[in-house]
Amino acid sequence: MFTRTFATINSSAPRKFRLPHVAAAAAGAVSFSFATFASCTKSKSEILKEMSESTSKIESMLAAEKKIESLEERALASKGFQEMSFAGLQLHVTDNKARNLVNAREKIVAAAAAGAKIICLPECFNSPYDTSCFPKYSEPIPETASALDPTTSPSTAMLLEVAKSCGIYLVGGSIPERGTDGNVYNTCVIVNPEGEIVGKHRKMHLFDISIPGGITFKESDTLTAGKSFTTFDTEYGRIGVGICYDLRFPEQSAIMREKGCKMLIFPGAFNMTTGPAHWELLLRARALDNQCYVAAVSPARDETAGYHAWGHSTVISPWGDIVATTEHQPATIHATVDFTNVDNIRQNIPVSKQKRNDLYELNEKSKL
Amino acid sequence: MFTRTFATINSSAPRKFRLPHVAAAAAGAVSFSFATFASCTKSKSEILKEMSESTSKIESMLAAEKKIESLEERALASKGFQEMSFAGLQLHVTDNKARNLVNAREKIVAAAAAGAKIICLPECFNSPYDTSCFPKYSEPIPETASALDPTTSPSTAMLLEVAKSCGIYLVGGSIPERGTDGNVYNTCVIVNPEGEIVGKHRKMHLFDISIPGGITFKESDTLTAGKSFTTFDTEYGRIGVGICYDLRFPEQSAIMREKGCKMLIFPGAFNMTTGPAHWELLLRARALDNQCYVAAVSPARDETAGYHAWGHSTVISPWGDIVATTEHQPATIHATVDFTNVDNIRQNIPVSKQKRNDLYELNEKSKL
Repeated sequence: MFTRTFATINSSAPRKFRLPHVAAAAAGAVSFSFATFASCTKSKSEILKEMSESTSKIESMLAAEKKIESLEERALASKGFQEMSFAGLQLHVTDNKARNLVNAREKIVAAAAAGAKIICLPECFNSPYDTSCFPKYSEPIPETASALDPTTSPSTAMLLEVAKSCGIYLVGGSIPERGTDGNVYNTCVIVNPEGEIVGKHRKMHLFDISIPGGITFKESDTLTAGKSFTTFDTEYGRIGVGICYDLRFPEQSAIMREKGCKMLIFPGAFNMTTGPAHWELLLRARALDNQCYVAAVSPARDETAGYHAWGHSTVISPWGDIVATTEHQPATIHATVDFTNVDNIRQNIPVSKQKRNDLYELNEKSKL
Repeated sequence: MFTRTFATINSSAPRKFRLPHVAAAAAGAVSFSFATFASCTKSKSEILKEMSESTSKIESMLAAEKKIESLEERALASKGFQEMSFAGLQLHVTDNKARNLVNAREKIVAAAAAGAKIICLPECFNSPYDTSCFPKYSEPIPETASALDPTTSPSTAMLLEVAKSCGIYLVGGSIPERGTDGNVYNTCVIVNPEGEIVGKHRKMHLFDISIPGGITFKESDTLTAGKSFTTFDTEYGRIGVGICYDLRFPEQSAIMREKGCKMLIFPGAFNMTTGPAHWELLLRARALDNQCYVAAVSPARDETAGYHAWGHSTVISPWGDIVATTEHQPATIHATVDFTNVDNIRQNIPVSKQKRNDLYELNEKSKL
């Protein structure tokens, strides 16, 4: 086991790790292995004693190895570390939660069968988009899969099960979350192909607007805003997550880009006033300013519902072009996302390095 | 004179001053006037003595009065404090500086005659857009009109003269400026209807990019970047100025918006690679994110020149819509700019008040 670990890490050393912390862990493991093997004058029992004293180091090494092997396997199974297939599911959402879950699962399985490796659901995919519905439809969302109670958290249970079953990353749109503090949040759960929760984004900017003759909506009537930026790592690169109205705040996207994101994913449900005017513009703006892929996934429009979603789920390239889009009916959009495009554009127009941090600075404040 | 000053300020008190510092100066003047008149038991000579001792206060009061009267007259002459006519001159620029100045002046006079109150010229309107030309075409630009030497600064001299002669605000595109430090800057001079210099923007982000198969350009070969944000006040509202590549840095626009700008003006010369891809998108993004008017004015395209400008001078509304635009030929675009639209949109979608300054913050650093 130990030798295999050493060999595995050694052979993978020349590869380019996408995740800095994995590379660091690997380097640490190699260094430990060398130290152990260098002490060849010691007896087997002495070595075993040293090993048992170093349990914590070994455990972290093995965890790193597992992560590296897992990422490598996935990367080899894909076309490389950079390219992957993304799918956004523009679902028909009803007032029947169980039906919404069955429908979502069915479309996830189909998209995965079509080759998608990262799949995103729409904002509020298990409930009508209505402030009066949010508390009623809300569920607890645990921090880890092991803490899940499927009885009280059926939506999260479905997401974990189907992500593992299909072997995909799942950006779970959003659902109304009942926090342990009793507040209700608009929350996106992110699940990896092992069925583990790797992120949970609570909408950071609540949708409170009033346009005379257009739309009036006040999420803060029943929702509480989140307090954290959300990113997660894949073998393709780091990905950031925001929800809908978060799109209007360039600072959030810029900070996620600074955290190393090459793609930003926004479950969202714009409306018939701001949708035609701003949806595509905001997506293209976030993509161009941050030179990253941007995907936004909306529910399909339901003329019989109280809130008419704009639809038009879309993927934008880091150059600001539309890669995939659709109209307002139920649909699945597929897009090939190639992160070498991100690297190239950032090299050609190096705005990130050219920012005048002597004159201005955008800072993330310490978490509350 | 003194009584008239008092009366003038008093009568104008209920009006809504657009400029906080003018309102403050007016309030100071009123207070001074009251104090002087309250002392009615004093002899005329005593009052005159007090007045002579207060020369500096009186001077500042008179300056404030002059400014207020001037702004009020302009506002009354316009359709109100909020609405005004903007013109962008997409000029044909040659390698003959004198010819460029004559052509620019002619088009400014024509736009003013057509009713424009704020007129903007293109980036680099007196020189070819070419790093090797910048030093050769550069001129000193004084800080004030009184320091102008028309022999060494013919371009600035023309701008001051024509702005005063036409009674317009002139955003003088840009010209290569020879600084007192010997460096060359890409600089926009801003002139008010009295022919005074009210702002000078040195391009803050130099255009250094290299797109294989597209365009390679390196302004920093001969130019130095500026160090200041630039805004100026009008009776319509506050306006910010950036130049071309500055457009790609959302922080600069956001800070100008925080300083109270309701319109951002960018002389700029995008090219045949980034123009079709990003010009309109960046303008609309800056307008929507900051909920302000954005105008960008390019030179016309000259296929015989070394640098082929994209053209497409454009004005965008605070809702992100195109108000006026053109193709690549020489042209003047006219747009009615109504700052009540800015106020309304900021009230309806109050993103500025909804920013999560507990989680992130964009700060201007103190000037160097």
